[in-house]
Amino acid sequence: MTKTNLKKEAINLHRRHSGKLEVVSKVEVNSESDLSLVYTPGVADVCRVIADDEKEADTLTSRGNMVAIVTDGTAVLGLGDIGPKAALPVMEGKSILFKKFAGLDAFPLCLDTKNVDEIVAIIKALQPSFAGVNLEDISAPRCFEIEERLKKELDIPVFHDDQHGTAIVVLAALINAVKVVGKKHRNLKIVINGAGAAGIAIAKLLMKAGYKDITLVSLEGVVCKGEKWLNPMQEEMAAITNLTGIHGTLKEAIVGADVFIGVSGPGALKADYIHTMKEKPIVFAMANPIPEIYPEEALAAGAAVVGTGRSDYPNQVNNLLAFPGIFRGALDAKAKDITMEMKVAAAHAIAEVVSEKELHANFIIPKALDERVATAVAKAVEATTILETKGKSSVC
Amino acid sequence: MTKTNLKKEAINLHRRHSGKLEVVSKVEVNSESDLSLVYTPGVADVCRVIADDEKEADTLTSRGNMVAIVTDGTAVLGLGDIGPKAALPVMEGKSILFKKFAGLDAFPLCLDTKNVDEIVAIIKALQPSFAGVNLEDISAPRCFEIEERLKKELDIPVFHDDQHGTAIVVLAALINAVKVVGKKHRNLKIVINGAGAAGIAIAKLLMKAGYKDITLVSLEGVVCKGEKWLNPMQEEMAAITNLTGIHGTLKEAIVGADVFIGVSGPGALKADYIHTMKEKPIVFAMANPIPEIYPEEALAAGAAVVGTGRSDYPNQVNNLLAFPGIFRGALDAKAKDITMEMKVAAAHAIAEVVSEKELHANFIIPKALDERVATAVAKAVEATTILETKGKSSVC
Repeated sequence: MTKTNLKKEAINLHRRHSGKLEVVSKVEVNSESDLSLVYTPGVADVCRVIADDEKEADTLTSRGNMVAIVTDGTAVLGLGDIGPKAALPVMEGKSILFKKFAGLDAFPLCLDTKNVDEIVAIIKALQPSFAGVNLEDISAPRCFEIEERLKKELDIPVFHDDQHGTAIVVLAALINAVKVVGKKHRNLKIVINGAGAAGIAIAKLLMKAGYKDITLVSLEGVVCKGEKWLNPMQEEMAAITNLTGIHGTLKEAIVGADVFIGVSGPGALKADYIHTMKEKPIVFAMANPIPEIYPEEALAAGAAVVGTGRSDYPNQVNNLLAFPGIFRGALDAKAKDITMEMKVAAAHAIAEVVSEKELHANFIIPKALDERVATAVAKAVEATTILETKGKSSVC
Repeated sequence: MTKTNLKKEAINLHRRHSGKLEVVSKVEVNSESDLSLVYTPGVADVCRVIADDEKEADTLTSRGNMVAIVTDGTAVLGLGDIGPKAALPVMEGKSILFKKFAGLDAFPLCLDTKNVDEIVAIIKALQPSFAGVNLEDISAPRCFEIEERLKKELDIPVFHDDQHGTAIVVLAALINAVKVVGKKHRNLKIVINGAGAAGIAIAKLLMKAGYKDITLVSLEGVVCKGEKWLNPMQEEMAAITNLTGIHGTLKEAIVGADVFIGVSGPGALKADYIHTMKEKPIVFAMANPIPEIYPEEALAAGAAVVGTGRSDYPNQVNNLLAFPGIFRGALDAKAKDITMEMKVAAAHAIAEVVSEKELHANFIIPKALDERVATAVAKAVEATTILETKGKSSVC
């Protein structure tokens, strides 16, 4: 489809259906008798059961399967701060993917406020209606504070997909790419270009998964202790990354690297830079729609494995592989949080969907629409939750 | 169905389905091509259209058909302050009735706060996701303040069903009951027993519809200027009702009345009181599940027309006859408010569904499940909105 056709067809599709979501009943109401069960007077008895034990809300209402997709519309796709109403088509899209891949009900809440305190207060107050919160397209650094505060203050799992969904799928892709090139993963030198929400989340998750030598690069340069332009999150990262104390820019950081992970902008990776990487370099150029380097060019420059964010090239790193299964597993396990361990388990589960036989430089990660993935992720997340819970209680 | 069976069956039904609602897609996602239209990259163009003109949110997303059902769980059915989670079964029931009778999508938001400022702020912030707000089961007097502030501060219609839904259906029933007894409606003496949210809303709407002689009675006694126990809303009503300055209790107020409207408690109306009413008295005993007087007893005492809130007696005064059509009409007309004129028009539309031929002391109001009603109400509300809008612009 050409770009103009895609645009026209997408707008027409949305206009034809007046959006993508509807809220429907799971039960029939065709008689007075039905009405007396689903509404008054019968419903009063259902209310009473929950009033006596509020955990019953998750068995007697749709709450236990309901996820809030929350945004303030400040960082929507590559479009930036387009406002909460304009963010709705993305959130509705997310909702239908939650349903299709994980059978979850997800409702888009687009908030007309950018105030961190207000956003936190609103989500807290909405807890009686939801079993989980997926934060989406909220700009940094507010997204960090909002997520951190919600994780502390809520009893239900919170997940900022732009950070952690991306990190999980990158880790999954990396696990398999490393197998393809036949390297030992613990010794790999990894450069992440982009030191915003996604880049930092990727760095943290890779470290949790055992990767030690990670260097972050922002538009200002290599994230390094003492740099004046570091924001608080980058300062925190400077203390635990860039082990050899590289200064400078991507050009300096990438020399001798095994892996390039781009969550930055179009054309940020030059073919020349790839020449300076170690043998069999792995390149994930995930800027969308125009990657840091096009796969053809990266392969010509010697890259052994290339992934992008695009569906028209092999190895698409797509959050869709993570978020439905993550929430399915967390809700099934009645998890109160989505922990680093659960994220690492999710990444391994995604990687393992690609069999040893299928694994290849052009197939390191399942296709976005592979329906096996969400189930595998959900199982892994649920199992981890149960292990963690047992672990905790055995300590007590 | 016995009471015990109803209870068991209602709980089982809710448990079997894990609640009553689901959020589903109106479009298919079966291929990479579908995905590129409903999600990235195609969705970005849809977002851009709304960013340029935010009215397009109502044509390109589900927002234009989406109603928020908001409660804090403080006055749920007759159960009182059972909390927001325990209110969910009622709100889900409401949602499926919105869908069934008016094709509206309605989502339950149960808020874990009773603070008026917070509730108002939350609903304001959620406007990008919704085209209308149905307030539900919020206790007085907070419900008055919340509704009043929202009506001023929001650009979308707000409707507190416990007040206005009840008032509309009572007015509809009264219009037809008066026809049955063959009286002139302007001269009727009407006593409303119950001076809370519903009673006051009924009084106001009846006055708007041209009924002049109305007396409100609370548990403390007749609402009358100068009484010390009046709350601010009752004080306001004391100035415009009880024209003859009756003091005392229901016993005194009802003498010579044509109409009794009960939104109070079980057994509040004695058969003896009916003997003191004018000829052909009309009795609406709407306390639920136990009415102010049972229909058999009221009829034996001389009542000409009796209505209740129950489905197992004739003339059930059920909000379900109002709210779906009210919102359908308001949203279709892109109304910014639900005015008194729209409510009066809705009541007439409900009354008119009962044909002259059908009209009878035991059939003054359509059955709750009569699917003609919502359409008739929606048309009347939409027509009124358009008239009002024209009226306003001709004044400007």
